Amino acid sequence: MRQPAHGGNLAWAAALAGCPRDAILDFSASISPLGPPNSAIAAIQSQIGNLKHYPDPNYSELRLALSHFHQLPPEWILPGNGSAELLTLAGRELAQLAAAMLITPAFGDYYRTLAAYNAKVLECPLSLVISHTLREAAKASTSLIADKGLLLNNPHNPTGKLFSRDSILPYLEEFALVVVDEAFMDFLSPDEEQSLISVVQEYPNLVILRSLTKFYSLPGLRLGYAIAHPDRLSKWQLWRDPWPINTLAAAAAIAAIQDTEFQQQTWTWLPPARSQLFQGLTSISGLHPQESAVNFLLVESKQSTSQLQQLLLKHHQILIRDCLSFKELGDRFFRVAVRYESDNQRLLAGLQSVLSQE
Amino acid sequence: MRQPAHGGNLAWAAALAGCPRDAILDFSASISPLGPPNSAIAAIQSQIGNLKHYPDPNYSELRLALSHFHQLPPEWILPGNGSAELLTLAGRELAQLAAAMLITPAFGDYYRTLAAYNAKVLECPLSLVISHTLREAAKASTSLIADKGLLLNNPHNPTGKLFSRDSILPYLEEFALVVVDEAFMDFLSPDEEQSLISVVQEYPNLVILRSLTKFYSLPGLRLGYAIAHPDRLSKWQLWRDPWPINTLAAAAAIAAIQDTEFQQQTWTWLPPARSQLFQGLTSISGLHPQESAVNFLLVESKQSTSQLQQLLLKHHQILIRDCLSFKELGDRFFRVAVRYESDNQRLLAGLQSVLSQE
Repeated sequence: MRQPAHGGNLAWAAALAGCPRDAILDFSASISPLGPPNSAIAAIQSQIGNLKHYPDPNYSELRLALSHFHQLPPEWILPGNGSAELLTLAGRELAQLAAAMLITPAFGDYYRTLAAYNAKVLECPLSLVISHTLREAAKASTSLIADKGLLLNNPHNPTGKLFSRDSILPYLEEFALVVVDEAFMDFLSPDEEQSLISVVQEYPNLVILRSLTKFYSLPGLRLGYAIAHPDRLSKWQLWRDPWPINTLAAAAAIAAIQDTEFQQQTWTWLPPARSQLFQGLTSISGLHPQESAVNFLLVESKQSTSQLQQLLLKHHQILIRDCLSFKELGDRFFRVAVRYESDNQRLLAGLQSVLSQE
Repeated sequence: MRQPAHGGNLAWAAALAGCPRDAILDFSASISPLGPPNSAIAAIQSQIGNLKHYPDPNYSELRLALSHFHQLPPEWILPGNGSAELLTLAGRELAQLAAAMLITPAFGDYYRTLAAYNAKVLECPLSLVISHTLREAAKASTSLIADKGLLLNNPHNPTGKLFSRDSILPYLEEFALVVVDEAFMDFLSPDEEQSLISVVQEYPNLVILRSLTKFYSLPGLRLGYAIAHPDRLSKWQLWRDPWPINTLAAAAAIAAIQDTEFQQQTWTWLPPARSQLFQGLTSISGLHPQESAVNFLLVESKQSTSQLQQLLLKHHQILIRDCLSFKELGDRFFRVAVRYESDNQRLLAGLQSVLSQE
């Protein structure tokens, strides 16, 4: 079986660990341990009897619910079969420009979607964005940036770094198109989040991608949405099939975004759990976690992390995310999700045991 | 609300009929009344607890099940988010050729997918295919056909006409790419079907699209698959996101294709039910149904069918499929699904009542 390029490949992990999939403690996929919300499961159950009907091709109820949630007119929102589907459509747009700038290390599927449409890719290290010199970097590589696109995620994966809204706004003035993948933004509470949704109506060259996968623990369901100018979204709709979203996924999404209790629980759970895991990792010799705004931590390691991954699987049935698919990171970094405290302790004990035997 | 371009838009119909969606008797979507199979529903229920995991990106179990079902190696099969997703990928392939020939009247989404990639479309009336002069028609419109693609469905929608396997084989020798949408082929029993699956390994320029939507009554689930040369399918996989199929849809598909009892029931139900409905329609003055191999009938009408559609909705809560989206048919044809006998009788009574009041 091939080494997985993404987190969460439990079939591969179970084969290596020699145990059933359910026995794997998965830190590789950055999924909340709190979900799925009961409200979403109940919504799925209630719709099973409706599978014999086509979904509403306008997905009116879902768009209306998202419209209330984000206080935006429904035509600014396009639901998709996971934000991954919408990323592919964004890739097609970016490929029509002179080049697309990627902030590295970048999620592997960004390269896939840009390659799918033969986009010209310009890579720009994250450090330049942090030091606000991305603009200079872009200008250095080519003289013009008005004919180029920018694809970034905020918060950034795999570092967990959050960019402020204000730090991204200048790029909207300069790039022809800015695609911001906010797949993890919902892990920040309303008083901390830095989403660009609040300004989208001012920027026809802005596309925001959101996902229900991570926050609501529903990666098997495939539900995401794009927020952008209605003209752009109408065009995207003609690029894809008329019913991309499964009836059950649409129902679960409506229930999930209305579940304010689940949202509040997540915002209460995450900061102390992340802080404890961060402290625990820091205290292990040879490991250096990075500060993160979201539900995962990028960890630098003195040991080979693919070796570490294999040992944790074989001896502890614990799966961590190696960073081999991020070519700037390679074999000296791994990524772990923040889980419940007892699981986080199991990870820390496993890491300690494996590293002390090296 | 816009007039729907596809069948099965119950939100639109219910608004017009002034009743809840559930009260509409839907003849517009060509969905079997027998499903969904209990086996598929049970499989969905059993997987709800697994939504917190990503689907296996190889969809190995599903491909293996389809591989057994069709007696083909798994790498010749690519599952998708409804056959509509795969049709869009096929459209991208067809657009790379000098032109794509469509058999008209053609399913509206064929035009959408070809337009999405700016394919040059050549239309060819169904009558030429039936008279085996498609090749001559293709050659008449342009001197070469070796640089062109052909997109057809078999059985044909909306006429219900079945082409024999042998009548399609010559096109495989001549066109650069032949895409055959077999969305309704499973309604034909094993001794009647004319699928090209049995010869796909001999033709690298053949793509077959199949759907679980109609036969298993699962349009809300979105599950279809393409059968084609593994090199082509590997390329398609890079054109789309890594997890296009929902976990619940994958599980339902595995159960459904193994449900031989359900399949047998369908093959037993359909021929007499279709024959009764056909006779009933023939006996109504002004209506002329066409012979069909599948679970729907195309009916020619002396009255405007959009008027007929509105009257049936308002007075009988019955929805038929107008054919306005098929420009060659227009307002003098409608399409109806074959349902259970009691429903078919309600349709016949409704039609009789509405037409006698004209």
